[in-house]
Amino acid sequence: MPSVANVLVKIPVTEEQAAAMMAAMPSATFDFAAPVGDASHLPRTPKLDISRERVSQADVILGNVAPALIEASPRLQWVQLGSAGYEAYLAPGVLDPSTILTNGSGAYGPAVAEHSFALLLSLMKRFPAYRDDQRAHVWTDEGMVSSLHGAQVLVLGAGDIGLCFARLCTAVGATCVGVRRHVPSSSSPEYALAFERVVTMDNFAQELPKADVVASFLPSSTETRGLVDAGFLGSMKTGAYLVNAGRGDLIDQAALRAALEEGRIAGAALDVTMPEPLPQEDPLWDAPNLIITPHVAGFWHLHSTLGRVVALATENLGRFARGEGLRNLVRG
Amino acid sequence: MPSVANVLVKIPVTEEQAAAMMAAMPSATFDFAAPVGDASHLPRTPKLDISRERVSQADVILGNVAPALIEASPRLQWVQLGSAGYEAYLAPGVLDPSTILTNGSGAYGPAVAEHSFALLLSLMKRFPAYRDDQRAHVWTDEGMVSSLHGAQVLVLGAGDIGLCFARLCTAVGATCVGVRRHVPSSSSPEYALAFERVVTMDNFAQELPKADVVASFLPSSTETRGLVDAGFLGSMKTGAYLVNAGRGDLIDQAALRAALEEGRIAGAALDVTMPEPLPQEDPLWDAPNLIITPHVAGFWHLHSTLGRVVALATENLGRFARGEGLRNLVRG
Repeated sequence: MPSVANVLVKIPVTEEQAAAMMAAMPSATFDFAAPVGDASHLPRTPKLDISRERVSQADVILGNVAPALIEASPRLQWVQLGSAGYEAYLAPGVLDPSTILTNGSGAYGPAVAEHSFALLLSLMKRFPAYRDDQRAHVWTDEGMVSSLHGAQVLVLGAGDIGLCFARLCTAVGATCVGVRRHVPSSSSPEYALAFERVVTMDNFAQELPKADVVASFLPSSTETRGLVDAGFLGSMKTGAYLVNAGRGDLIDQAALRAALEEGRIAGAALDVTMPEPLPQEDPLWDAPNLIITPHVAGFWHLHSTLGRVVALATENLGRFARGEGLRNLVRG
Repeated sequence: MPSVANVLVKIPVTEEQAAAMMAAMPSATFDFAAPVGDASHLPRTPKLDISRERVSQADVILGNVAPALIEASPRLQWVQLGSAGYEAYLAPGVLDPSTILTNGSGAYGPAVAEHSFALLLSLMKRFPAYRDDQRAHVWTDEGMVSSLHGAQVLVLGAGDIGLCFARLCTAVGATCVGVRRHVPSSSSPEYALAFERVVTMDNFAQELPKADVVASFLPSSTETRGLVDAGFLGSMKTGAYLVNAGRGDLIDQAALRAALEEGRIAGAALDVTMPEPLPQEDPLWDAPNLIITPHVAGFWHLHSTLGRVVALATENLGRFARGEGLRNLVRG
């Protein structure tokens, strides 16, 4: 068992969760930097003033301490992030080469998938137009709507979140095709229940024209940046819908505006944009048949997500104490 | 087989559907009053100028001809309505006592249920607030959201539409309790899959305080008018959601406004109001955490609904021609 003196916790926990963490590593001293108590009103980490000195004394950090505060502390054995994203912690000078890094992947699937699913249904039922009518006190018929029942859905990025999203769509009668870097083994029952089939990124072009809905949960990479450009949008079925809850740099926003203005696609819903926040003067705000939510699908807007992050951190704490392999290893 | 000379069709049909209707009753002459062709752009029956004389020559009517035009024609053997509602056709002097009446119940379940389900998710994810923010070009976090996963849903009116709605909610992880006049037999597998249990109207009061969501698809009757009053709303769980896609007179709208303004309930979504259209000056339009859609969940806003109405009418036409019992008998 590695020798751990101090665990710095930057994830809000209840008294019970704090006790469970301490029980998972009884030899360590815990420094709870985030408030201990009910956090059901917190949609994300509160702003905390944690000193460099306090960070420098940690052998283990649970939660996302600002990378600039870590200064490659050689004492730091392991960082368990609350977030799924970890890019900023791999930048040079942030972590000592010996520091293990794990992330919060897997905690966010239900929340991000349900938000994206709700966005898609809102587009299909023309709810933004009805909201505008309601504010104007106007009772008017906005015309034909679409259904997810019988729809063909193409899910770009069929990891944890994409799988949760496909489960929801399949449950209400859609047929889903997944696209991911590596196709899971054919024996994976959770994929077989949610997806009709899963293809790799180099094969998705032939799926695109068949899809009534294209939904992306892709992270940002050289492969994905600008992937949804005029050519991509032109290959989509006329009247199809686009949803993006991955990263904003996936989409050429000028091309998206053009496709919406021309009616090439029926609508789009974005929880992520480029840049964020979207500047007040950006013309994207007013594109027709577009819904923007301000990167709120994840974090802890759904309180159960925080519970999943805490459960993961606590499980990994026990594994670390027993010298076992950690879940969600990014680097180690 | 009853002798039928003339069938008046007021439901839009394609060439193929018209041919299938004629094949179902080869002896009759068909008068297609609605346009024959592609109707995928029609959210409801187009305004048609049908003369009293034309109506008076019909032995059978398929579709909703204005009740005032029928004048209790003794020649009229059967009316198949396109709608689920039929009250106006039972008024004195509309139909001759010998005229059989069937309705379109069963065609609307998928459309009304999915609209209601989408409304509920929009409330849970605070999409009306995000829509308002988008129009103001404001990137702001609207706080914590809810999920249907793990929610307790009480479905008032567990007929065709309520069953479809419960299927959707159950599919995404909610638990549904149904309320209907008569509890279906315990051997009904479709009810067992969608509902944890089904209770009768006189037993629902004890279910109300347990529900995170109350959704009504009840028709208008002496039992249901004003059912959702201050007492009902006060018995709901604090922070619960209300959805109404049945009839507007279910709800005491002043009491609902008060419950929303006090934050007693987290939100409400109404596809029906009292009266309709809701007058422009009605304060209900501006109640907080309320979504209003203008009675558009049904009709043919989802094009597949029209296909279901046509299929039902065609099946009943064949049954009538063969002297068999009709489906969806209202009076006969």
